[in-house]
Amino acid sequence: MSNFTRCAACRYLRRRCCEDCTLAPFFPSTNPTRFAYVHRVFGASNVARMLQQIPVEQRRQAADAIALEAYWRVQDPVYGSVGVISRLQREINVAQRELAETQAHIALYAARVQSPSTQFDPSIRDNRAPEN
Amino acid sequence: MSNFTRCAACRYLRRRCCEDCTLAPFFPSTNPTRFAYVHRVFGASNVARMLQQIPVEQRRQAADAIALEAYWRVQDPVYGSVGVISRLQREINVAQRELAETQAHIALYAARVQSPSTQFDPSIRDNRAPEN
Repeated sequence: MSNFTRCAACRYLRRRCCEDCTLAPFFPSTNPTRFAYVHRVFGASNVARMLQQIPVEQRRQAADAIALEAYWRVQDPVYGSVGVISRLQREINVAQRELAETQAHIALYAARVQSPSTQFDPSIRDNRAPEN
Repeated sequence: MSNFTRCAACRYLRRRCCEDCTLAPFFPSTNPTRFAYVHRVFGASNVARMLQQIPVEQRRQAADAIALEAYWRVQDPVYGSVGVISRLQREINVAQRELAETQAHIALYAARVQSPSTQFDPSIRDNRAPEN
């Protein structure tokens, strides 16, 4: 392979890109930033070794996941992908709390449908707590 | 510092542990696996460099996040922490769908409370779709 077509990894590391380069299929020369982040966080040899230990048909997904992790760690050097996970866990907690509140309201409605004589409280309808 | 008290990183790398060792506060000798995972995924020198670039007061959180990322990648060499993120995103989608369904049910109840003559459909009460 000529220098002109060497992959982003080999170009970054200023080395020849051989035909069986482990990194070439996943780090094209058209996206040098992707490899630069991966190299900064994991190191090129670590990534090549990790990919070699994975079946060929799963290396694309692994390279994409590694590139994402590197991107998040460059963006947030303290928390990296763990910061993304914490944010998602907070979102799940909010959604579950909202779901529990809505289910409590539905139980109230069920009771009122069965006993229609009970006074209707409009605050329930639009998901607000009744005012005291 | 004597060899007896050197940190997990220096013990693993068979080197002296100096008093200003960057890794020692976060990789105690009592938890060698934590450093072994981090070394396998990121490499010791990469982790030391990343920690040195972070303010001292945030290094504990960064080391914990790096250790978690390494653990997830060892457990799941293809997806690593991105696999955890995908699972959480699916959980959020499920919770949001469930919330939308419950809110649709509450709208039905609201309509029935306002028009109590409408026939009561018990399938709504226990969150099942009406049977045709």
